[in-house]
Amino acid sequence: MSLVKMIEYQDAPPEVRAVYEDIMSVRETDWINNFWKALANDPATLRRVWDSVKQVMAPGALDPLVKEMVYVAVSATNGCEYCTCSHTAAARKRGMTDAMLMELLAVTALANETNRLANGLRIPVDPAFRPPA
Amino acid sequence: MSLVKMIEYQDAPPEVRAVYEDIMSVRETDWINNFWKALANDPATLRRVWDSVKQVMAPGALDPLVKEMVYVAVSATNGCEYCTCSHTAAARKRGMTDAMLMELLAVTALANETNRLANGLRIPVDPAFRPPA
Amino acid sequence: MSLVKMIEYQDAPPEVRAVYEDIMSVRETDWINNFWKALANDPATLRRVWDSVKQVMAPGALDPLVKEMVYVAVSATNGCEYCTCSHTAAARKRGMTDAMLMELLAVTALANETNRLANGLRIPVDPAFRPPA
Amino acid sequence: MSLVKMIEYQDAPPEVRAVYEDIMSVRETDWINNFWKALANDPATLRRVWDSVKQVMAPGALDPLVKEMVYVAVSATNGCEYCTCSHTAAARKRGMTDAMLMELLAVTALANETNRLANGLRIPVDPAFRPPA
Amino acid sequence: MSLVKMIEYQDAPPEVRAVYEDIMSVRETDWINNFWKALANDPATLRRVWDSVKQVMAPGALDPLVKEMVYVAVSATNGCEYCTCSHTAAARKRGMTDAMLMELLAVTALANETNRLANGLRIPVDPAFRPPA
Amino acid sequence: MSLVKMIEYQDAPPEVRAVYEDIMSVRETDWINNFWKALANDPATLRRVWDSVKQVMAPGALDPLVKEMVYVAVSATNGCEYCTCSHTAAARKRGMTDAMLMELLAVTALANETNRLANGLRIPVDPAFRPPA
Repeated sequence: MSLVKMIEYQDAPPEVRAVYEDIMSVRETDWINNFWKALANDPATLRRVWDSVKQVMAPGALDPLVKEMVYVAVSATNGCEYCTCSHTAAARKRGMTDAMLMELLAVTALANETNRLANGLRIPVDPAFRPPA
Repeated sequence: MSLVKMIEYQDAPPEVRAVYEDIMSVRETDWINNFWKALANDPATLRRVWDSVKQVMAPGALDPLVKEMVYVAVSATNGCEYCTCSHTAAARKRGMTDAMLMELLAVTALANETNRLANGLRIPVDPAFRPPA
Repeated sequence: MSLVKMIEYQDAPPEVRAVYEDIMSVRETDWINNFWKALANDPATLRRVWDSVKQVMAPGALDPLVKEMVYVAVSATNGCEYCTCSHTAAARKRGMTDAMLMELLAVTALANETNRLANGLRIPVDPAFRPPA
Repeated sequence: MSLVKMIEYQDAPPEVRAVYEDIMSVRETDWINNFWKALANDPATLRRVWDSVKQVMAPGALDPLVKEMVYVAVSATNGCEYCTCSHTAAARKRGMTDAMLMELLAVTALANETNRLANGLRIPVDPAFRPPA
Repeated sequence: MSLVKMIEYQDAPPEVRAVYEDIMSVRETDWINNFWKALANDPATLRRVWDSVKQVMAPGALDPLVKEMVYVAVSATNGCEYCTCSHTAAARKRGMTDAMLMELLAVTALANETNRLANGLRIPVDPAFRPPA
Repeated sequence: MSLVKMIEYQDAPPEVRAVYEDIMSVRETDWINNFWKALANDPATLRRVWDSVKQVMAPGALDPLVKEMVYVAVSATNGCEYCTCSHTAAARKRGMTDAMLMELLAVTALANETNRLANGLRIPVDPAFRPPA
């Protein structure tokens, strides 16, 4: 159903295999999900996007579970089925319970609601919410 | 510039004042931001939305700072200036640093990027990401 | 601030003036708003979009006020300031009160909320909601 | 396929059953659709969202059929399959014909088109469209 | 699964058949895709949308392949499965290779990413990017 | 007005200056626009996003002007003022005329329109548009 073919490890050129191996090593898993198999149609894009994901989702000022939950919130807002499912699975692996998922989506949905009240009424931003120049 | 007038406390009917007082009490502040002054044009909506915000944003399975950051991520995704500014301010009040804000937006932006790769290539969801029926 | 210049009636070529005159005649007004002055940079687009607006917004199976309100709901959802302001003004001219505007945005916002709960939880459509094939 | 399980009436705790009964009573129906069965994983969210839907969609300054059609317009704009199907069914039950549905989507689609012309050209809002301060 | 029935040529009234024939003639094909069969439920909408597509997608200041690729970029951004698939097929017919598709989606996705960094940080537009008034 | 401060060259740490110099060199210009000055609050993000932009927007299977126009189409669809203005300026520098901009936005807007007709009617994808598995 995909618009490009999925590139399996055994059919992949060396630069794709190198990324696949890095993914499996960083994630401590032994399989590659379809997202990467699709991007492998363009090895430079595969490498670039994986490097970005690896850098952005690593522990930093925010912990990785919070990052996965932000990812789910954005994906649900955009209606992306693939990313909603894959990042919900990733968040669960990091400890997200059903109660946390329900609360996460309640916040996500509420923000979508109030975004439209603010945008629809064209409410001016209070000066107090603007940082000093 | 707003499409409705801002209802100030001194001009507000009793049911609006009651909500304003609850907002100031729960938030331990002495002023009301424009979002609520705009909603006050419909006291039933003001009450309902405030009750939702109060319930959803309270501590629960997720901590309030995480919830504020999810709110910022959704508001940035939707391009809502008002909510981006107000919830960034709220998150900062709860301890979000500039480093955390930058990382939050890096995750938000990356999710917006990969959402379009997945949707544009119509990548099928891996069975492993689907919960058992 | 616009990315193209606004084409005023006195500076417009005949095919643009013809559209401007039709707009003023159909709308029973004596001025042209910026949306059309911007589209006039491409007379074929100006003509095509005006013909579409004239056809779609005319009385039909739905009454024109309902159509204007649907327009506001979509524009608020997309965060389009220009269309939110212009179609709110148009709806008010056709009788929309402040109470109706507030209710319209309450519905719009609620739909945006529940859209994300449905999409975020990937809730399957009930067979009863699908029309017979 | 859903990311959470559907909670059936017979498996539901009392506070969920109470909401289900209210839904069936208000809607004069004898079944519960999947949206509520999914929200029931968090009884507080189920109660809050149902109370919001009940309040917002009730007759008021706008009639319920208009509200259902606005709901369809927003859901189509956001690409939410579940809500598009469920609210189209609800609007049909209240009298929406195929001709009305086609016109509703023609308005929705046209608004999505002109929203991008206005946003893409960054067209300034005419002063006449702004309410007096 | 569609919310309206597909109108086949043999069941179509004359004004619908006339549009179908124009579509097949302009596109040099002998079949009609579902998009038009669905719009045919409202012959005036079918005629108007087809006339718009015919005008907008014709060779002009931009070549038709570029236009098809822009269409794919927008459809991927909005998560529209139907238009993503149909316009990817149309672009391929006009010469888009897999390498071009991958690059197109890389640009599309990157724009979605940086749009949220700019909107999330509320970065002011540099005066140099604004055309002289 | 931005939510973070703009980092000027003279105030920037060495790793930020290195990126700024690369930007000016690749773009053959002597100034840095606000987007990068805002990202500079997180040097790792600045470096990563610039490297992505440099790679993705370089000549490849698509020419750089087409890429800039796709960027404008996505930014207009998302309502991102900053990116709409900056990439319109970039596209003009590469040869985009007013006629090309108007056509680009006509395609962008039309795609946004038909996306909602397809999504709103839930039109099934024709098998002919699906690539062989």
